[in-house]
Amino acid sequence: MGGSVNDRRRYTSPARREQARKTRRAILDAAHRLFAEKGYLATSVEDIAREAGVARPTVFTSVGVKSQILKEVIDLTLAGDDEPVPVRERPWFREALEEPDPHRMLHLHARNMRMMYVRCADVYCAVESAAEADPDVGALWQAMQRWRLMGSRFVAESLAGKTRLRDGYDADTVADMLWSVATPMVYRKLVRERGWSPEQYERWLADLLCRALLPD
Amino acid sequence: MGGSVNDRRRYTSPARREQARKTRRAILDAAHRLFAEKGYLATSVEDIAREAGVARPTVFTSVGVKSQILKEVIDLTLAGDDEPVPVRERPWFREALEEPDPHRMLHLHARNMRMMYVRCADVYCAVESAAEADPDVGALWQAMQRWRLMGSRFVAESLAGKTRLRDGYDADTVADMLWSVATPMVYRKLVRERGWSPEQYERWLADLLCRALLPD
Repeated sequence: MGGSVNDRRRYTSPARREQARKTRRAILDAAHRLFAEKGYLATSVEDIAREAGVARPTVFTSVGVKSQILKEVIDLTLAGDDEPVPVRERPWFREALEEPDPHRMLHLHARNMRMMYVRCADVYCAVESAAEADPDVGALWQAMQRWRLMGSRFVAESLAGKTRLRDGYDADTVADMLWSVATPMVYRKLVRERGWSPEQYERWLADLLCRALLPD
Repeated sequence: MGGSVNDRRRYTSPARREQARKTRRAILDAAHRLFAEKGYLATSVEDIAREAGVARPTVFTSVGVKSQILKEVIDLTLAGDDEPVPVRERPWFREALEEPDPHRMLHLHARNMRMMYVRCADVYCAVESAAEADPDVGALWQAMQRWRLMGSRFVAESLAGKTRLRDGYDADTVADMLWSVATPMVYRKLVRERGWSPEQYERWLADLLCRALLPD
């Protein structure tokens, strides 16, 4: 009997794992929609369970408490899928780093920012707005700022290795500028609040970066 | 006797008004420091009373509830004094609008932003971070966004009246860009978090605006 139970377990385990993965993904997608629309503070675990069509305890067992859900939503939307590969290892990010022409590199970087912000600007801004009111979210927000600064450094150092920068800007200054201006918040202001298209944002950012950073 | 009371009232009234103005100003300055340091949500009316050296009820009678205090702190720090003159009527704002040379105009605008943000970036960001958690602050935040957009329009239209803009940008696009990039948040990121000096910020912003907006 022990043997048959083990056999059945071995037989159903991949299907169960697939079901667990789907449930988890449905919860994260539901949470993403709600955080983006209503904000993090106004969204409850009950709301997330209802939107995902699962029972409330399933949310806790599949993902965790609300701040853990937010963390996983962020990981998922930054990368665009649930593969455990960091952004800087993604082919689209590497394509920009490896592009030898500095103008084309900045155009690829602007494309990458547009791609990421279409997915994650809303939830990124939800984290920022909840950061002061909730210490767990505050800690996540600080970590996200450090990751984005690190990503900006990669791009700045790669650019500085390819070309003389304007006015003798160094890679640190360029990293600070990318980190403070090419942000999800600026994207959100222009696209959500002022009605720009994502493509218009991409062209504008590419242009701004080329003019601000590269010599004539 | 009625006459003597009236006389005394008339006699002491300017001194009392002056004392009331000083108390009010001490409360607003204390609130500004606390909002900037601790954030709006973490600051109580008790904290403000203690920091200002007044009794708690004096805060309510002199200024009002916490959201009203925040509103008055913002009015005070945006303009830099407690005169009832709107920012766009201030000589330093008019100086930029009236400057005929577009490069010099953008340098004056960058100077104005530096001057304002040195005073108000911290409390501006405190409003943004508390906007989601507190509906009164949310409404104030929306109003502040509209005021800043209106100010950006004045500058954009004045610039468009003086020169051809780059790439056929129109005044609306320029206003959106000023509103989304020349923000207190970008100032705060660069100066508070990345350690730039306010003067470095001013030079960088002037340069960025000239390159992004004006033809070669």
